[in-house]
Amino acid sequence: MNDSTLQSIAPDLVPANYLSVANNARTNRDKQIRILLEKKLPGHGWDNATIEYFVNELALMDSNNFLNRCGVGEREGRVVCELVQRRHYNFAHGIGRSGNLTDAQPKAAGSTILNNLTNALILDLIREAGIGSCRKALLVPMATGMAVMLTLLALKAERPQSRYVLWSRIDQQSCFKSIQSSGLIPVVIDTVPVEERDDTVLGTDLGAFRDKITELGASNVCCVLSTTSCFAPRTCDNIIELAKLCQESDIPHVVNNAYGLQSTYLTHQLEQANKHGRVDAFIQSTDKNLLVPVGGAIVAAFDREIVEHVSKLYPGRASSSQSLDVLMTLLSLGKTGYKNLVVERKELHQNLLKRMIAIAEKFGESVISGRNPISIALTLKSFGSDQQMIGSMLHRRGVSGCRVVTGTEEKSIAGVKFKAWGSHRDLETVPYLTASAALGMSRKEIDGFIDKLDQVLDERRVKAQ
Amino acid sequence: MNDSTLQSIAPDLVPANYLSVANNARTNRDKQIRILLEKKLPGHGWDNATIEYFVNELALMDSNNFLNRCGVGEREGRVVCELVQRRHYNFAHGIGRSGNLTDAQPKAAGSTILNNLTNALILDLIREAGIGSCRKALLVPMATGMAVMLTLLALKAERPQSRYVLWSRIDQQSCFKSIQSSGLIPVVIDTVPVEERDDTVLGTDLGAFRDKITELGASNVCCVLSTTSCFAPRTCDNIIELAKLCQESDIPHVVNNAYGLQSTYLTHQLEQANKHGRVDAFIQSTDKNLLVPVGGAIVAAFDREIVEHVSKLYPGRASSSQSLDVLMTLLSLGKTGYKNLVVERKELHQNLLKRMIAIAEKFGESVISGRNPISIALTLKSFGSDQQMIGSMLHRRGVSGCRVVTGTEEKSIAGVKFKAWGSHRDLETVPYLTASAALGMSRKEIDGFIDKLDQVLDERRVKAQ
Amino acid sequence: MNDSTLQSIAPDLVPANYLSVANNARTNRDKQIRILLEKKLPGHGWDNATIEYFVNELALMDSNNFLNRCGVGEREGRVVCELVQRRHYNFAHGIGRSGNLTDAQPKAAGSTILNNLTNALILDLIREAGIGSCRKALLVPMATGMAVMLTLLALKAERPQSRYVLWSRIDQQSCFKSIQSSGLIPVVIDTVPVEERDDTVLGTDLGAFRDKITELGASNVCCVLSTTSCFAPRTCDNIIELAKLCQESDIPHVVNNAYGLQSTYLTHQLEQANKHGRVDAFIQSTDKNLLVPVGGAIVAAFDREIVEHVSKLYPGRASSSQSLDVLMTLLSLGKTGYKNLVVERKELHQNLLKRMIAIAEKFGESVISGRNPISIALTLKSFGSDQQMIGSMLHRRGVSGCRVVTGTEEKSIAGVKFKAWGSHRDLETVPYLTASAALGMSRKEIDGFIDKLDQVLDERRVKAQ
Amino acid sequence: MNDSTLQSIAPDLVPANYLSVANNARTNRDKQIRILLEKKLPGHGWDNATIEYFVNELALMDSNNFLNRCGVGEREGRVVCELVQRRHYNFAHGIGRSGNLTDAQPKAAGSTILNNLTNALILDLIREAGIGSCRKALLVPMATGMAVMLTLLALKAERPQSRYVLWSRIDQQSCFKSIQSSGLIPVVIDTVPVEERDDTVLGTDLGAFRDKITELGASNVCCVLSTTSCFAPRTCDNIIELAKLCQESDIPHVVNNAYGLQSTYLTHQLEQANKHGRVDAFIQSTDKNLLVPVGGAIVAAFDREIVEHVSKLYPGRASSSQSLDVLMTLLSLGKTGYKNLVVERKELHQNLLKRMIAIAEKFGESVISGRNPISIALTLKSFGSDQQMIGSMLHRRGVSGCRVVTGTEEKSIAGVKFKAWGSHRDLETVPYLTASAALGMSRKEIDGFIDKLDQVLDERRVKAQ
Repeated sequence: MNDSTLQSIAPDLVPANYLSVANNARTNRDKQIRILLEKKLPGHGWDNATIEYFVNELALMDSNNFLNRCGVGEREGRVVCELVQRRHYNFAHGIGRSGNLTDAQPKAAGSTILNNLTNALILDLIREAGIGSCRKALLVPMATGMAVMLTLLALKAERPQSRYVLWSRIDQQSCFKSIQSSGLIPVVIDTVPVEERDDTVLGTDLGAFRDKITELGASNVCCVLSTTSCFAPRTCDNIIELAKLCQESDIPHVVNNAYGLQSTYLTHQLEQANKHGRVDAFIQSTDKNLLVPVGGAIVAAFDREIVEHVSKLYPGRASSSQSLDVLMTLLSLGKTGYKNLVVERKELHQNLLKRMIAIAEKFGESVISGRNPISIALTLKSFGSDQQMIGSMLHRRGVSGCRVVTGTEEKSIAGVKFKAWGSHRDLETVPYLTASAALGMSRKEIDGFIDKLDQVLDERRVKAQ
Repeated sequence: MNDSTLQSIAPDLVPANYLSVANNARTNRDKQIRILLEKKLPGHGWDNATIEYFVNELALMDSNNFLNRCGVGEREGRVVCELVQRRHYNFAHGIGRSGNLTDAQPKAAGSTILNNLTNALILDLIREAGIGSCRKALLVPMATGMAVMLTLLALKAERPQSRYVLWSRIDQQSCFKSIQSSGLIPVVIDTVPVEERDDTVLGTDLGAFRDKITELGASNVCCVLSTTSCFAPRTCDNIIELAKLCQESDIPHVVNNAYGLQSTYLTHQLEQANKHGRVDAFIQSTDKNLLVPVGGAIVAAFDREIVEHVSKLYPGRASSSQSLDVLMTLLSLGKTGYKNLVVERKELHQNLLKRMIAIAEKFGESVISGRNPISIALTLKSFGSDQQMIGSMLHRRGVSGCRVVTGTEEKSIAGVKFKAWGSHRDLETVPYLTASAALGMSRKEIDGFIDKLDQVLDERRVKAQ
Repeated sequence: MNDSTLQSIAPDLVPANYLSVANNARTNRDKQIRILLEKKLPGHGWDNATIEYFVNELALMDSNNFLNRCGVGEREGRVVCELVQRRHYNFAHGIGRSGNLTDAQPKAAGSTILNNLTNALILDLIREAGIGSCRKALLVPMATGMAVMLTLLALKAERPQSRYVLWSRIDQQSCFKSIQSSGLIPVVIDTVPVEERDDTVLGTDLGAFRDKITELGASNVCCVLSTTSCFAPRTCDNIIELAKLCQESDIPHVVNNAYGLQSTYLTHQLEQANKHGRVDAFIQSTDKNLLVPVGGAIVAAFDREIVEHVSKLYPGRASSSQSLDVLMTLLSLGKTGYKNLVVERKELHQNLLKRMIAIAEKFGESVISGRNPISIALTLKSFGSDQQMIGSMLHRRGVSGCRVVTGTEEKSIAGVKFKAWGSHRDLETVPYLTASAALGMSRKEIDGFIDKLDQVLDERRVKAQ
Repeated sequence: MNDSTLQSIAPDLVPANYLSVANNARTNRDKQIRILLEKKLPGHGWDNATIEYFVNELALMDSNNFLNRCGVGEREGRVVCELVQRRHYNFAHGIGRSGNLTDAQPKAAGSTILNNLTNALILDLIREAGIGSCRKALLVPMATGMAVMLTLLALKAERPQSRYVLWSRIDQQSCFKSIQSSGLIPVVIDTVPVEERDDTVLGTDLGAFRDKITELGASNVCCVLSTTSCFAPRTCDNIIELAKLCQESDIPHVVNNAYGLQSTYLTHQLEQANKHGRVDAFIQSTDKNLLVPVGGAIVAAFDREIVEHVSKLYPGRASSSQSLDVLMTLLSLGKTGYKNLVVERKELHQNLLKRMIAIAEKFGESVISGRNPISIALTLKSFGSDQQMIGSMLHRRGVSGCRVVTGTEEKSIAGVKFKAWGSHRDLETVPYLTASAALGMSRKEIDGFIDKLDQVLDERRVKAQ
């Protein structure tokens, strides 16, 4: 309602003094919105009513919601199913224009604000999360793998000669596929054992990177692709040293920070890597870091240009559904809410680690964790060839996300063969399972998991004897 | 959003010229709201987005939605279940105060507007529907029976000596019960046969009313209670003559117009009754006339006082859920939408009548309809004692609302005995079934009913032979 | 989905083993529903998805949602506004039939279950809340005042001779009005000072009750109407002794337990009153005790008959909106959730009391609380004639529900005069304000209130000097 | 609810015969679902209640909604903001796995069904729409441009040598950009004048295509990229002849059918092109053809392999938001609903054409339409240099989507220069504006547009004189 409409409400509908109190409350609410429009993440989360009020106001600024709309184009944001319209809060125009993913849309002022504001809040969040030097963030409505691919295509366009992506091996398909889909040639650098906190974990083979660059020629390398967050016993790549190497060699460096925003340890690595070397872009998923449905990723950088290049590369419009999810989530959490989630996760990780160590001691196994801040591995040496059975027993008991690695599987992806798939290097390894304490986990889930793990191992142990 | 907040949106969020187009659309939308706030039913229905936008703005004017609320009372509109809060659009304070159902609430400016505005729109609608002399309407969050009771209690308070309610019999329990629940004594005046459009239907026994008033003494009669909408072969009471009689005798006259707002014939009777005699109040349900869920009724009158008396009699607050339903429905329909519903219903009634006459001819039965604008009776003389079977066969085939009257049942309600229950008078009658063309019916429903009726009668006819 | 439909899903839509895991989860969910259908309040609250799943299944059992519905009645549950339909989860038929508020509806199996189940869960909750002997509870879709009135009408119908209601004065209009609206004559029994925990509060004048019964004759008294929850310095009526007196005198006893379900002290009083004497019915609001929007009340009793009488008295159908609110709220809370709310409230009351005592000491005033478990009074003796100003200053600062009593006002309700209105007895009293720690309050609200109270008193104190 | 749970409902909650009627209705509803699960688009649209009931059942089959979930992975479908969860109907897992966009997800049986079913229904729709030979359709959660790019990448992977895409020029940026973003080299083939229905429109330069293939060598050409739906005076490419040429030359043929599914003329062209030649894939947007929010595209083919290749190329998971939108829309429309939309559109196009011809006659201009079934061009020869002013005057009057082409602009996209941008060929042209009758348009919009166009032209004409 316009101010004057509100003030014109007749006294036989409501007495003036009651209206005045309501108007004060309205002004109060607007103060929050003003702060937000200065592109600052709210300190404290908003209530649902205020979030929806703001989102609705934005939607009404789009032409598909104008009362006397008169559309003679081929794309007018018409939505025929009332349920669909409702769940999108009457947004229909998506984001961007054919020229650029971040271009303002003449038909959709509200969607334009939605998109720009969301990117601004994400930038604020990334800085708060520990990457204070970050300068630009772009939400893309596609999952991490596609976002990595798009970033590679943008780099390739700038280095048209280059053909190779040097990739510190991590056994997760979509990362590897993103290189192949981009038409570039993946060069796999196997991990090597490194010592972290009395554990032998798997990390970056810096020497092999250096050798490979020399071998291929720096100008033929499109970029180095490293990873932060990963399954133990894989640990965060040594991105600080890789960043130095890339700076020296004048090679772009892309970091797959898939679910790393939730860990202050990993964000610190990124900040330091940029300080001491070269990080062109780092990419993370919105579902894992911001607890929204799967489908979005954030391309972020310490320099505006690369992100703008990505946004210009994107051909055509895109869904604004992910922007809306992220905006509403950030408004509902505020800085405090997000920080609390991060702190809780850290505590739960400590708890999970402690209890997995106890399980390991009981069964004569060991835990491999190192500095991996999220994932923990538990060896299954003494369970014969029963590991997969352990996995499926846990699954049937309702445990999801527990990953069993036998260390002996082979996998071929698009013609490239990986030995010991799952273990991040070609050498055979002891079998193990992994469990993670990821953002949004509850203590109840840890309790349930440990109980069930204990039962299942007990049961298999008896069988094995 | 306040105007100044909107105008302060930075150009890096959206270019000024796009914002300006959006602002024009906002002004445009506000024009509709301004007209509404002048208490006028919109000419054309609003779209859902605008309805919700307006309703949300109202809700945010209630103190339970203030950001820094600080409630130390015993009733602060707190809602603990998020689903409940959502479905009430964050309204929680209900309507009215302990003193009066229409009093403004200091804690709830939005609810106050919601309630007053809804009553104003209902008044506008009633006038449009044909009762142009109506002066006041009050939505009460209780069904018709309770609303009649409350009206009787209000009249009784003004005529403390009076004890009787003279009631033109209609065989529908809740109306009769409303008299008894109010503590008054119902005096049943059986209907008599009257001729309407070549049919013999059942109508008002004016002579009996006159005699009864003389017998009991006018001052002992609290009021006459007549009915407009009813099941054929009962027809609308002769409310014009009853109104004259009431005026002569100085007795209040309450009309149960349960679902009569949907028929221009019945609203015309009401308007004329008031013109030529006395009608103190007429009561109608919101579910049947406005197609909202069961639970509300409208007490309307040609004089403000009686309605205000009813609203003052009501002890305490009440639900605003019915006000919200009616407001949203009226906004979505507008005058045009409601009129279209009324016209369609009339056409469907003609269609149903024509087709039931055809069925009657086929089976050697007859249709009794008279001037009843909604309900139609079909005799079942030739089906032996099978009538109830016909009813349950139709029910099993998915026909609802078809009422079979055997004409031989007896019923006792709170000590009062009714012979031939269902037929509106004590004399035995031929068996029949009734079907109605009520507001919101679809042509498809008539088609389905006629098909199934034909099948069932065919089947019983064969059996009967 | 029917079981067989689910099991028939083809493997090219989803592999059989994944479907099987999903089916196990479905069975798991159904176990919760089965327990509920045994009319037991869940131990722990349900998640929103399960609540809506269950509510939707119920709604689809009503004929207005049948796919091939064919309605030829005058009331077919048609809802024309999609927004209204949605917010009622497609329920439209309300509860009850013309004969009885708790009758099953042939057209609406789902609404019937909804209503019966809700009443059963409320009974379970009341017992859990401390009134273990309760035998029947009925949710009526009207606020407390109307529910009291309906109960009085039911009693009056059983005692047709009786004319008086003996009422222990409490200065809250709707309770008094409910007596008048029922057509009975209120006999006001002023409160008297009683000692509780070193405070002099206002309580029941048992002697006056006894005298009045003798004076009027027990058979002329329809009932005694007492109150539990109230504003300090009024305290809970001595309902145990009143119950004994009612039993001796053979007079019904109705207890207005408006917001008493939230206090174990008050529920204990009710349980004991029934044990040692006579309590026919006790009535409480749903908004204050169950944190739903205003509009419902619970009529409960230690004997099924009186409640059934009330449900039969109600003429016609009624809204099921309140049943739905209460059902969803109880499912979302579970026993544990409700108990937690009750415990938190008690702690917050202790906190509020402690801090108001500190304020009183600072300003040389005193706190009057006694055994009132919810409301606290703070005298304002030393603020001259400024008390109302204090009230409105607090209001402007966003404090709602803080009630200032000057002790010198007169009020006339429907011809009956009350001196010192607000103070529960005719004698003038010191001025004071009251604040309550009611269910659902937050610690933040207490902090805000105490801060603002301190500021306001400081400011007025300076002015007064 | 499981069948046995339903049948176990106690008679004191609802009488057995009422429950039985409800159960019949449930079975009835399930019949619809069974037909759907056979992957057939419903004949008639479903009501909202049934759509949501089905969608909710699917969502509850995903592990994030299991009651005793115990997630120890890094991606467990946790959604922290209640509003986000709600708007996604509790879906969170997206679609696909890292290996393949159409892989079943072990954690999400419901999402898997959602995705597969939606693709199946889209295939059914495409066939119904006139492309009866279509064999496979894949919804990708990205707009048309990205979907074209992905298809080009898939073809490129199969033809690693190839470097060129031969593109029949259409002046719409995202199509051209999709070639560049894929890393391939666009070869622009200017359009040539062709005669259609007495109009000279712009169409395919078949000779130039043939020459270019000879010049570059067929094996160096990745594919031909043609377009169906476009702005007049551009007409549908001669895809039948292009298909023949591609077949002869053994070159893949991709058709950008952006909003062509809504026109039976264009779908007929596609069906014939496949019959007489080679069409590898055709791509269309979901927003324009299915009236959902922007963000999805359909890759369809007459052969399963290419679509499967695209789905395998996609690295990682993706949003299921578009699948949900499309599923709900198709269920709400049914075959009949979609056909009605298509027929209405055709009629509106005739109406718009007739009225634009009248405008042209009035102002001495001409209409250029040819066989373009959607877009119509109106020359603006006699308005001097005022064309852009006409565009912005229409825009300010609320007309959106009306495109003014001066015929003299130059544009450079990623280094490639286009003369006379907007007119689809390098030669200067007369200025004109275009208007479209696209799916979902209303008659009211045409009326508004023609009125405003008339006013604006009148006004400019006066100025020009």
